Amino acid sequence: MRITSVQTQLFNVPLDEVLVDAKHGDHHFFQLITATVTLEDGTTGTGYTYTGGKGGSAIAAMIRDDLTPFIVGQDASDVEALYDAMQWHVHYVARGGIAAFAISAVDIALWDLRGKTLGQPLRQMAGGASDRCKAYGGGIDLGFPLPKLLDSLQAFLDRGLNGVKIKIGQPSLAEDIARVAAVRDMIGPDVAFAVDANYSMSVDQAIEAARAFAPYDLMWFEEPTIPDDYKGFGRIADATGMPLAMGENLHTIHEFEYAVADAKLSYLQPDASNCGGITGWLEVAALCRANNILPCSHGMQELHVSLVSAQENAGWIEMHSFPTERYTTRPVVIENHMAVAPNAPGTGVEFRWDMLAPFAQS
Amino acid sequence: MRITSVQTQLFNVPLDEVLVDAKHGDHHFFQLITATVTLEDGTTGTGYTYTGGKGGSAIAAMIRDDLTPFIVGQDASDVEALYDAMQWHVHYVARGGIAAFAISAVDIALWDLRGKTLGQPLRQMAGGASDRCKAYGGGIDLGFPLPKLLDSLQAFLDRGLNGVKIKIGQPSLAEDIARVAAVRDMIGPDVAFAVDANYSMSVDQAIEAARAFAPYDLMWFEEPTIPDDYKGFGRIADATGMPLAMGENLHTIHEFEYAVADAKLSYLQPDASNCGGITGWLEVAALCRANNILPCSHGMQELHVSLVSAQENAGWIEMHSFPTERYTTRPVVIENHMAVAPNAPGTGVEFRWDMLAPFAQS
Ligand SMILES: [Mg+2]
Ligand SMILES: [Mg+2]
Repeated sequence: MRITSVQTQLFNVPLDEVLVDAKHGDHHFFQLITATVTLEDGTTGTGYTYTGGKGGSAIAAMIRDDLTPFIVGQDASDVEALYDAMQWHVHYVARGGIAAFAISAVDIALWDLRGKTLGQPLRQMAGGASDRCKAYGGGIDLGFPLPKLLDSLQAFLDRGLNGVKIKIGQPSLAEDIARVAAVRDMIGPDVAFAVDANYSMSVDQAIEAARAFAPYDLMWFEEPTIPDDYKGFGRIADATGMPLAMGENLHTIHEFEYAVADAKLSYLQPDASNCGGITGWLEVAALCRANNILPCSHGMQELHVSLVSAQENAGWIEMHSFPTERYTTRPVVIENHMAVAPNAPGTGVEFRWDMLAPFAQS
Repeated sequence: MRITSVQTQLFNVPLDEVLVDAKHGDHHFFQLITATVTLEDGTTGTGYTYTGGKGGSAIAAMIRDDLTPFIVGQDASDVEALYDAMQWHVHYVARGGIAAFAISAVDIALWDLRGKTLGQPLRQMAGGASDRCKAYGGGIDLGFPLPKLLDSLQAFLDRGLNGVKIKIGQPSLAEDIARVAAVRDMIGPDVAFAVDANYSMSVDQAIEAARAFAPYDLMWFEEPTIPDDYKGFGRIADATGMPLAMGENLHTIHEFEYAVADAKLSYLQPDASNCGGITGWLEVAALCRANNILPCSHGMQELHVSLVSAQENAGWIEMHSFPTERYTTRPVVIENHMAVAPNAPGTGVEFRWDMLAPFAQS
């Protein structure tokens, strides 16, 4: 069935409060960029991507001016071929960056159409191992004083999650250690606990931090140093034995391949919003299977719940602090500490356009 | 001196004829994206980037919506600090791609202002080794029948160049070999001769091709395989001894570091329009110095003539087939086979806005 049009929208969605991490400054809003693909029979599929507040108009411009003219008129059913073709179409200005986000949004729309056409939910198309997966609460909480930090983690536990993650990167390592100790003390030994430095440390600083965190039984240490330094990650793992995680900043399959080869990761966290959509995410999941790494996710939990649940070697989805799920008809359902994937054909993610309308950018 | 405004423009500039290479399809036009930065005393500096026809509106959107609000009000004089700050400002949607092009345009404008403020030409600010460098004609000629190919190379020689480069990637290797043989026969033994596959080959195909090209004394074999496969480049170099070149598709210093570590290159071809502007290009030139690799360039010869001339270990500038220089007040001057850098303070690149006006996009 041929594609007849693509409608792109950009929303700057305000956050309930300012959220801070070690490298991205203050977040006052997040950007949601949607791409709705229409077929000649009128069927529509919607994909999307998001940012921390920058790049949204560039993503929308690329979808509108480069990808839309390229895919309109093409058959929507061979999603993987269209994915490859889009990558080559913009290759000179791509290999990651804005193009990775733009292609992701369109790819997700094509998968939504595929699922609606086949009458299959995403979790089934993506592997079908289960209809649920583990989920942890990911805070953007570097700026929270300790009492507020603990309250925010309690809110994750109250929602039924049994894993939490906090940001680190305080002015001194001693402060980070004190917060880590206080969190472990509050949540007890049975709740999974990870930390995320947002690549704010040198390799040597990260080694020192990982050693200091050893008593607190961390599930993983996320992005201790810059994502580009795959071998630096490997040195941290070798020196400390600390399980490492990354993925939200890797945008091409080649970057994931280098990470798998050199970074000695225990977890990979591909984000379908910026690693090539569902096609890109599943390529990374295959890499994980082949290399004994647990596939997790970053952001947009309402979609990743289906992708992670579908994997035999599923890791954890992040319940991210950008509340994209709030603007959909089905925020993630938690049952017995597990996140339950939707059953609706397609991605199972339908936006509440009425809620988003006030935040639309021209 | 504070920055008061940035004006961004996008031009779709038609080519005289359709130009074809192995991976980018037909080029009917190129995109020129300019960024003019104004200081509080009214001084202006102009930077720019270009594409093969895709991504221009996304680049313009990022300059306008993400970089401009960030740099307006800041002091323009510490260009390197602003460069780093821009990279971190958009990092989540960057690490290459569109952001690399957008930051490049702004960075070049800041260098233009720096040169005007100091009263120094770019070649002096960039190292000052010489005021001229070697230059070769880079054809986008995969679609040219042999007689036309030879005519186009003769035109390069007639302009005073003593180096040429052709595209390869014909349907069969035999056809590529025949064209390479015919070119060497026409230009004689004393003209430098390179080939460019635009990463259309597998590593094994490239090894076979490099061996077949051995009799023709090639200066280099450019982008035999995908730029991401640094170790694949290394295998081609090891297996054949053929000098290899790449760079136009590397956008971050980390990518160049991996290339230097693993790709066994003889030449690096950073393009200031997409590797972080002049600041980014000079970082790559420093890598070249430290690793015995010759710094060359890709595209926009009217600017790169100053950067390459300034290096002690200068390689060659490419006289690229996208004629950006035609739309400036000083197309590259060739004297005794050498390209001569401009003496004007700043980048020495001033656009003929009157010529560009008909190609402006909204
Ligand atoms: Mg993270
Ligand atoms: Mg080339």
